[in-house]
Amino acid sequence: ELAERAADCFAGGRLTGRHVLITAGPTREDIDPVRYISNHSSGKMGFALAEAAAEAGARVTLVSGPVHLPTPDRIERIDVISARDMLAACEAALPCDILIAAAAVADYRPQAVAPQKLKKSPDSDDGLILQLVRNPDILATLAQRADRPFSVGFAAETENLREYALRKLKTKNLDLIVANDVAIPGIGFNSEENAVSVIDRAQRETRFAQTGKGKIARQLIAFIADRFDQA
Amino acid sequence: ELAERAADCFAGGRLTGRHVLITAGPTREDIDPVRYISNHSSGKMGFALAEAAAEAGARVTLVSGPVHLPTPDRIERIDVISARDMLAACEAALPCDILIAAAAVADYRPQAVAPQKLKKSPDSDDGLILQLVRNPDILATLAQRADRPFSVGFAAETENLREYALRKLKTKNLDLIVANDVAIPGIGFNSEENAVSVIDRAQRETRFAQTGKGKIARQLIAFIADRFDQA
Repeated sequence: ELAERAADCFAGGRLTGRHVLITAGPTREDIDPVRYISNHSSGKMGFALAEAAAEAGARVTLVSGPVHLPTPDRIERIDVISARDMLAACEAALPCDILIAAAAVADYRPQAVAPQKLKKSPDSDDGLILQLVRNPDILATLAQRADRPFSVGFAAETENLREYALRKLKTKNLDLIVANDVAIPGIGFNSEENAVSVIDRAQRETRFAQTGKGKIARQLIAFIADRFDQA
Repeated sequence: ELAERAADCFAGGRLTGRHVLITAGPTREDIDPVRYISNHSSGKMGFALAEAAAEAGARVTLVSGPVHLPTPDRIERIDVISARDMLAACEAALPCDILIAAAAVADYRPQAVAPQKLKKSPDSDDGLILQLVRNPDILATLAQRADRPFSVGFAAETENLREYALRKLKTKNLDLIVANDVAIPGIGFNSEENAVSVIDRAQRETRFAQTGKGKIARQLIAFIADRFDQA
């Protein structure tokens, strides 16, 4: 128990004087005034990371999509709705030393937002074709800047986890990627626990066994602080 | 103040022995394991109506989409995700005397749910075409049964409110429709207050001035109990 408590406190003070920018939750992309597209994400992992980073002494900016979570102590929280809003809020929060992109950003948004509620025809059972366009890639945009922060991404996948995570690490120019198998029941979306692997640029993988999101967050922050110091 | 309190209590015991079925919240329609389509709806109006109906003595079944609200006392709550789940839960809860359909049901769902997360191409900025199909119409299905309950619908519109509400009343075979102008800031989605009109089959409109959703709910339940008795 003593060893466990020591591990929990490992990052204590390690991020003093550092600015850590964390994204959390889903984004919402309006179809019309009543309908939207979104991603499953409770925001719990990102909020736990924000809390752990603050515990480690960092100044933390938390940019959050629509979630139902209280703001942790000593965190500056900025609420946003869409991916474009989230990118703008992140850019406004720069510079930062470390970026942890835990948000489940919608990759696509409707090409046009209808100004009025789309009416279905009362006389037909016709479907609807929704033309979606790509959203800006927040993580890649920030990680490819000249003044880029130490950049940590998340890959939430349902298959080919290591392959997709490595591709994301490379194409987005990340320092670390946290790989999250969301097809496993009991971890991931809206659960209280998580189990992840972190992969670095040398393709070395470090596993974090299943436990509460608060504990995983403290372990991840300690690990990230280590790698940030070495970078 | 006394008159106001009297009005608040107007429905007391009026629905004793009646079974009231209420739908609330949004529905979610999966695109793939991580993405979905939904509607803006906090569920607050439907939950307030359930509470008011129970206060009026009714046995209440509340079929709710994904919301972040506690279950009111003396309510049987059934949680669902999709429109098809909501219809099945409502049909399983029959018979009922009064149906109040306050849920913001998704009119459309993706034609097929992808079994794995849809991957965007890392090499292109291509969009995505989403083919949507019509969901079953829960309210029309229940209100057109031979053993139909006294049926109350909601029309949440951003324009042409009276016209669309009347069309919905007629095509879905309703007894009453609650017309809700969701384009007005401060009422509707996720706000604490609401202001509505109720329209009957004779196209008579009764207005309920802006106030808290709990009070509007008690006024609406008293009004519905009146009209149910006259039916």
